[in-house]
Amino acid sequence: MIIVLKAHSTDAEVAHVERRIQSMGYRPHTIRGELRTVIGAVGDDRGKERLRALESLECVEAVTPILQPFKLASREVRKGNSQVAVGDVVVGGPTIVVMAGPCSVESRLQVLDVAARVKAAGARVLRGGAFQPRTSPYAFQGLETEGLKLLAEAKRETGLPIITEVMEPERVDLVAEHADVLQIGARNVQNFSLLRRVAESGKPVLLKRGMSTTIQEWLLSAEYVLSGGNPNVILCERGIRTFETSTRFTLDLNAVPVLKKLTHLPVVVDPSHGTGHWEYVESMALAAVAAGADGLLIEVHPKPEEALSDGPQSLKPERFAALMTRLRKVARAVDRDL
Amino acid sequence: MIIVLKAHSTDAEVAHVERRIQSMGYRPHTIRGELRTVIGAVGDDRGKERLRALESLECVEAVTPILQPFKLASREVRKGNSQVAVGDVVVGGPTIVVMAGPCSVESRLQVLDVAARVKAAGARVLRGGAFQPRTSPYAFQGLETEGLKLLAEAKRETGLPIITEVMEPERVDLVAEHADVLQIGARNVQNFSLLRRVAESGKPVLLKRGMSTTIQEWLLSAEYVLSGGNPNVILCERGIRTFETSTRFTLDLNAVPVLKKLTHLPVVVDPSHGTGHWEYVESMALAAVAAGADGLLIEVHPKPEEALSDGPQSLKPERFAALMTRLRKVARAVDRDL
Amino acid sequence: MIIVLKAHSTDAEVAHVERRIQSMGYRPHTIRGELRTVIGAVGDDRGKERLRALESLECVEAVTPILQPFKLASREVRKGNSQVAVGDVVVGGPTIVVMAGPCSVESRLQVLDVAARVKAAGARVLRGGAFQPRTSPYAFQGLETEGLKLLAEAKRETGLPIITEVMEPERVDLVAEHADVLQIGARNVQNFSLLRRVAESGKPVLLKRGMSTTIQEWLLSAEYVLSGGNPNVILCERGIRTFETSTRFTLDLNAVPVLKKLTHLPVVVDPSHGTGHWEYVESMALAAVAAGADGLLIEVHPKPEEALSDGPQSLKPERFAALMTRLRKVARAVDRDL
Amino acid sequence: MIIVLKAHSTDAEVAHVERRIQSMGYRPHTIRGELRTVIGAVGDDRGKERLRALESLECVEAVTPILQPFKLASREVRKGNSQVAVGDVVVGGPTIVVMAGPCSVESRLQVLDVAARVKAAGARVLRGGAFQPRTSPYAFQGLETEGLKLLAEAKRETGLPIITEVMEPERVDLVAEHADVLQIGARNVQNFSLLRRVAESGKPVLLKRGMSTTIQEWLLSAEYVLSGGNPNVILCERGIRTFETSTRFTLDLNAVPVLKKLTHLPVVVDPSHGTGHWEYVESMALAAVAAGADGLLIEVHPKPEEALSDGPQSLKPERFAALMTRLRKVARAVDRDL
Repeated sequence: MIIVLKAHSTDAEVAHVERRIQSMGYRPHTIRGELRTVIGAVGDDRGKERLRALESLECVEAVTPILQPFKLASREVRKGNSQVAVGDVVVGGPTIVVMAGPCSVESRLQVLDVAARVKAAGARVLRGGAFQPRTSPYAFQGLETEGLKLLAEAKRETGLPIITEVMEPERVDLVAEHADVLQIGARNVQNFSLLRRVAESGKPVLLKRGMSTTIQEWLLSAEYVLSGGNPNVILCERGIRTFETSTRFTLDLNAVPVLKKLTHLPVVVDPSHGTGHWEYVESMALAAVAAGADGLLIEVHPKPEEALSDGPQSLKPERFAALMTRLRKVARAVDRDL
Repeated sequence: MIIVLKAHSTDAEVAHVERRIQSMGYRPHTIRGELRTVIGAVGDDRGKERLRALESLECVEAVTPILQPFKLASREVRKGNSQVAVGDVVVGGPTIVVMAGPCSVESRLQVLDVAARVKAAGARVLRGGAFQPRTSPYAFQGLETEGLKLLAEAKRETGLPIITEVMEPERVDLVAEHADVLQIGARNVQNFSLLRRVAESGKPVLLKRGMSTTIQEWLLSAEYVLSGGNPNVILCERGIRTFETSTRFTLDLNAVPVLKKLTHLPVVVDPSHGTGHWEYVESMALAAVAAGADGLLIEVHPKPEEALSDGPQSLKPERFAALMTRLRKVARAVDRDL
Repeated sequence: MIIVLKAHSTDAEVAHVERRIQSMGYRPHTIRGELRTVIGAVGDDRGKERLRALESLECVEAVTPILQPFKLASREVRKGNSQVAVGDVVVGGPTIVVMAGPCSVESRLQVLDVAARVKAAGARVLRGGAFQPRTSPYAFQGLETEGLKLLAEAKRETGLPIITEVMEPERVDLVAEHADVLQIGARNVQNFSLLRRVAESGKPVLLKRGMSTTIQEWLLSAEYVLSGGNPNVILCERGIRTFETSTRFTLDLNAVPVLKKLTHLPVVVDPSHGTGHWEYVESMALAAVAAGADGLLIEVHPKPEEALSDGPQSLKPERFAALMTRLRKVARAVDRDL
Repeated sequence: MIIVLKAHSTDAEVAHVERRIQSMGYRPHTIRGELRTVIGAVGDDRGKERLRALESLECVEAVTPILQPFKLASREVRKGNSQVAVGDVVVGGPTIVVMAGPCSVESRLQVLDVAARVKAAGARVLRGGAFQPRTSPYAFQGLETEGLKLLAEAKRETGLPIITEVMEPERVDLVAEHADVLQIGARNVQNFSLLRRVAESGKPVLLKRGMSTTIQEWLLSAEYVLSGGNPNVILCERGIRTFETSTRFTLDLNAVPVLKKLTHLPVVVDPSHGTGHWEYVESMALAAVAAGADGLLIEVHPKPEEALSDGPQSLKPERFAALMTRLRKVARAVDRDL
């Protein structure tokens, strides 16, 4: 931490801050500049924000952290890339992993049909929602346990491992019984009790970025899972809130290279939620792969205009298949495969 | 809903969309303009977004809702202002209710000391965190059950009712035993299972706005509680995420008049979290009252520079007392009291 | 500036950065921490970003400025509050100055009528647009020179000084002939040639915040005028771009206390543009005064539903008069007058 | 436009709004729904916002536009893609055009050196700033006319056409003498007098998106140039302001497919300004091409750590050359060339 004092701080004030830094277990190192005195607090301040409380002293202008606050998620702890195994599929390796399927599981027919078709097109994981977080209490909330069973059936039919969302700590065990990857949705990225519970499960966790979560906060959420003993974390960029309304969210592909610099965890991208419009999914899927993503999460529905949720952003199976062909070319252009 | 077709739509396409609207239980009403055909879907579409799926049709350009999607929270359902009773205190009446206390309950001494001092200054509810949502897993997470007991003791000593945060569905009963108001934090505003559970409790609920929640989404979250049978909802503006970094969040006081227009629910403002710096709390507290807020949530700590959380935004008790004097004057200037 | 080196930097790298700091005229001061080496560059770095280029060295992780980059605008240079005289009116003194009038000057009748009525209600400056920055080339662009003459006539009739916008460097002289305050609109806050030209004019300048300008950038724009030799700068908060759409912009009242801390310049608030809806203007005007603003800029139109621009946010004269009565009460409650 | 009336509007109010719609030259078409009456105003409302003033009527809840407000920029006016010729180079055709060079022209040696090296690597246009918009008045403001001459010399040496920024209406002629493309910077995207003046010049114009400009507003700025008689407009996405601080701006690649749907104008992307860090430029450049961009604007500097501006985001020439090789592969994967 760097503690910046206000202009014209007295020697007594400097000494007072130095003592407080010491009392918190850090070593103060003072630099007297022309216009400001700054004090470095030397020590491992990752994840500890107690030093920030010094900002409430009248003589302190600002407290600025130097270290990133996460540890286990950091590339400094692990230089190489982490790989997360989902059944036979490896996320974070040379092959880009496409996870596809409907937003919600709506019926046996729907999910089996989509599962077969996305598999044929080259998807390696089946996505589908059983428990659905919906902004309105009047909207379709998912088939719940019935939905989980239909996903399990689709898995038996196709061999595709399953990713589905879990929203409540007390349902983690239930969902973990049927799912291969537990998805934490954007609205739960800082639901810390849920994060602790999925950590305990040991299952692979796909952690979506919140719509207003900074990359630093997101990695601290990952740190909850990692420090809970579960190393199998996949990060998923899915769009952030900005002023622009021509897309539902602003898919932030910049997050891909930023994460690749900061963390060893695999990174996938969800262009369906990120843009909210099927017409933009293809371009952004291609861009995500070119940017270095390790995988994609794409919504596919046989009849988007009848979907119970997120119809506007779902691809029809034929469009999805055509996209997979194009994705493969771009993957190879950046020395990956699909 | 208004469905806007793309330019040059054919008669067959118009007829197809009309049929789909009918099949979903709405009455289509078509207007052929010079450059676009638009179809109004007549019927009560509040909270139902199935019509939005029409956007996935190739001939449809956009689907625009006409009605606000919430019902029970709407002023159209209830013209007068709702009042929420918290013990003897009424939130939403002519008197502005100040809820004050430390961010976290840290010790018996701390909470009893602060409780006595905020009461003396005119606060009517004691705030304090026992379960703390912390961005980092390495930060202080609260005294938990012990914290609840200390709050209960402070209530016995001072007579002040208690507001404290609940983060997990399975702890709602525990917290409800000790607290008079259940606080839902910004990070849980769309934790729908938690919302359902606090609805069942019947207790007053203070629902903080999420840092990137639109006012419409926020009212839909309130709708989860209201439609779950609990009418005692207080809304709390606490700052949104924007590009500006000189404050920790951007306290959005515009939300006060917007909410007063849209909903009958009481509205309080948290200038401590909203700005993140004690130096700005006073101005924004005064402004909130002038804007029409029904109450304030303010952090007070006897030694902010030693606080285990949120020190930089906490007022010292003397400053808080001085603020209360100024607040009273502004309250009276807008025909309220404090 | 604080230069943070990457983990495991070598002594040679540290020495290289130290030399580069010296070659730019600063004194390096190195702190070796447990996990990072940081180097303070001691010297006056305000407004100079050359040190930031060090970030392009492979061994450098980040370069963090310590000082605010503006000088003349800073409270460190001038402790007391600046006052700007506009004819007999003083902006920045104990009396809150309300500037009111139509968005655009549309006709002689309109502007004379509004001028008389806002004066009667207590406004001290007349606002009105002659040159209008319009998002669309097809929208009404203002009466231009004819508009300036009508404003001048309204000034002769009422004695109210005039504030009007200037958009182009080459028209500064023309506008300065008729106006008492030159307004720089939000879209021109970083039009640096225009800023230099209004600096030369010596006239009072009202500098609106850009819709995505940080407070720091805004003060640097003020610094262009101040360092050009013109001390008569008034800052005007008018709403920023955020994700929220229930208001046209998000009026950021937090800027008032932040500016009062950072700068000696007077601060006024424009709730008309800031909210975009007349129904919210009253609450936000009251809040602005309570927050500590030195003045207000309010749009008033005799027939808002026929206005050629910004009708939705204009108050009718009677509403404006009623608002002035309420504003006076709040002003007195915070020890000001109106 | 769709005019939504408040609940329980009377017949007289409906009739009043219908009359006002007619008096503005539109045909009203009224739909009485269960909860709301809405009135369609039939007619060409593109670019005309006078109907919006109806929002100031007490009985009107909202006024919602149906048509995009731009005309000449719209794909509805021109189905095929526009191509802009820059000397022998065509922007908007099958070949992706890379424009590269230093942020500022700093010296003869620097610009000639960079020009030769970016040409050798495959760039087709040389970029370089002579007039520099700088946030701080104390920062390097460019070599101005001398810079233009050095760019002209580099053009003679290499044959590369030149793109450089123009900031002031009265300097358009001067810059147009030396430059092949006039760049309008992000801060001037709504400098309407500048837009009118570059329209008159007839020269190709590269119009950067403002940091908080919606795509709709940006296309309206393009409409100023197009409706001024200059069809040679290239759009350049360069990052928007969001809450995320790990990149300097948030490069919004979603804008690429959105623009490709809405407009026929060519679209290029500037990953250097968009991210602000050289380490992220490569990934985002590759992603931009995969997303469908027609070109790139990339900053290259022989010694970024000594650059007078924007050093942190500049690539060294060797890195740029390596990037070009990778870009070529991705371009071919999406059936383009470089």
